[in-house]
Amino acid sequence: MCVLGVGLIGGSLMRALGPDRTFGWNRSAPTAMAATADGYDVSTDLAHTLRRAARTDALVVVGVPLPALDAVLGAVAEHAPGVALTDVISVKGPVLDAVRRHGLAARFVGGHPMAGTAHSGWEAGEADLFRGATWLVAADDDADPDTWARVAAMATDCGSRLVSASSAEHDGAVARISHVGHVLAESLALTGQRGGDLALALAAGSFRDGTRVAGTAPDLVRAICEPNRDALLGVLDEVLTDLTAAREALAASGSLGPLIDEGHRARQAYEQAQVEQEAVVIRPGAPGWLDALRAAGAQGRPVSLAD
Amino acid sequence: MCVLGVGLIGGSLMRALGPDRTFGWNRSAPTAMAATADGYDVSTDLAHTLRRAARTDALVVVGVPLPALDAVLGAVAEHAPGVALTDVISVKGPVLDAVRRHGLAARFVGGHPMAGTAHSGWEAGEADLFRGATWLVAADDDADPDTWARVAAMATDCGSRLVSASSAEHDGAVARISHVGHVLAESLALTGQRGGDLALALAAGSFRDGTRVAGTAPDLVRAICEPNRDALLGVLDEVLTDLTAAREALAASGSLGPLIDEGHRARQAYEQAQVEQEAVVIRPGAPGWLDALRAAGAQGRPVSLAD
Repeated sequence: MCVLGVGLIGGSLMRALGPDRTFGWNRSAPTAMAATADGYDVSTDLAHTLRRAARTDALVVVGVPLPALDAVLGAVAEHAPGVALTDVISVKGPVLDAVRRHGLAARFVGGHPMAGTAHSGWEAGEADLFRGATWLVAADDDADPDTWARVAAMATDCGSRLVSASSAEHDGAVARISHVGHVLAESLALTGQRGGDLALALAAGSFRDGTRVAGTAPDLVRAICEPNRDALLGVLDEVLTDLTAAREALAASGSLGPLIDEGHRARQAYEQAQVEQEAVVIRPGAPGWLDALRAAGAQGRPVSLAD
Repeated sequence: MCVLGVGLIGGSLMRALGPDRTFGWNRSAPTAMAATADGYDVSTDLAHTLRRAARTDALVVVGVPLPALDAVLGAVAEHAPGVALTDVISVKGPVLDAVRRHGLAARFVGGHPMAGTAHSGWEAGEADLFRGATWLVAADDDADPDTWARVAAMATDCGSRLVSASSAEHDGAVARISHVGHVLAESLALTGQRGGDLALALAAGSFRDGTRVAGTAPDLVRAICEPNRDALLGVLDEVLTDLTAAREALAASGSLGPLIDEGHRARQAYEQAQVEQEAVVIRPGAPGWLDALRAAGAQGRPVSLAD
């Protein structure tokens, strides 16, 4: 595997797979030197790294932030246009669009390991970051079965659970279960602080948990949420509608209305969904395999590769 | 101490103080029997229990839900009008109003232990529930110094940290750091569930933490939040303003605007506020003692009783 960008996610991936199975590139020389000092083969020469990937038929994993994606894909198109390609970026539609613009779609299968910490950079990486996490492997039309199988095997080697969906379905889902949660956490934190030192002194576990992701670096929050603009706008509108209805009900009748019961049932549905379902076994390239992947994802079922 | 209502909070209080220092009452016979079976003196005869409290000059702690408060205070006014009185209900203004209506204000000092779990009832009680938690002891005008000292000593005996503020200040603060967080958690849970099984399958730690309090029983959420209507309405309006601004900025420019930086700074301020400050030592009844209590609370500083 050739890992481009060895920050928290790319660096954790190298550690999870080990130095014998990976090599990589990073734009920043201090980061590349830190990785090298830890025993990993990380260069700052992108063209050289990509030619090596092409020569060895490595799976290229793009781990740079979205704003750096175009430059990296341009180099891939120039130096290794035929490689098998995936990514670990948190939004899938914009990455797929960029890959198509660069003419690299034939052997591209997007990915998103649903793991992270509030920290970033090579030093923050952990070999176990993906263990037990969900790794979304995209099931877009015309996906290359061989690349899909390689991405899935890599995610499985990292200890992750495979879930599949189209890039658009993924982006719609993460707007709901991740991106809007970032926005709400920021708003809750700000509202608490406006109450001054008394409010912060009275804050207990619910405030701590509800604002936890507001501890994430603002640049990272923006890089995660803002590229998913269309899906996030729709979800923010839903939230604004629900909150406005609760506010109006409270003002009119003293009751917060149906939101409290609905939210409680939703949390129970989430808890029930944590019970692991049996994986759907997939043979990449078999007739209907992409439909089978998407159907499993729509049911929240994990998938696994046929032996 | 005489504990009226031995659910999660009242039952934990009896356990924290022990069976030798407490007796109590509960409306439900099965609950009273369960407490009795555990070695605690809990009756279903309110008049008898209150006469015993009056005879022994016990501190009466009201631990019933707000909707049951009026009936309990009516009984106190009838059977034990002169007792020292406090409560452990999560909103303070409406309790103070009710106490005044029943002519019981002279020896009343409100309280709110900032602790709880998602469970309720005698069985859910824990002797350590209040250990390390903050216990708000109200500093309202004309508070009786002797009762204040007894409530503060009880909270200290339970292992809690004392913070003081007026009932109105308390209610404004908890609308920010607790009640609006309940509403946001319900909304986030509902929004996630609307994404179907795929969204719930992709939900990770941020969704789990952000929706945790949506696991609380809906009746309890309503009983906590709705009595604080006026403060909660103002805070909900702030949140709606902030979220609408972020939504409009995202639509117009692709950026979520200042909310992300502001929320991050607020979370950092919360984390810094977790560093324990030195307690302000208070001598109840000394000149200016209520002002000193409120000043300490406004600074987020704990207070302690002078020896």
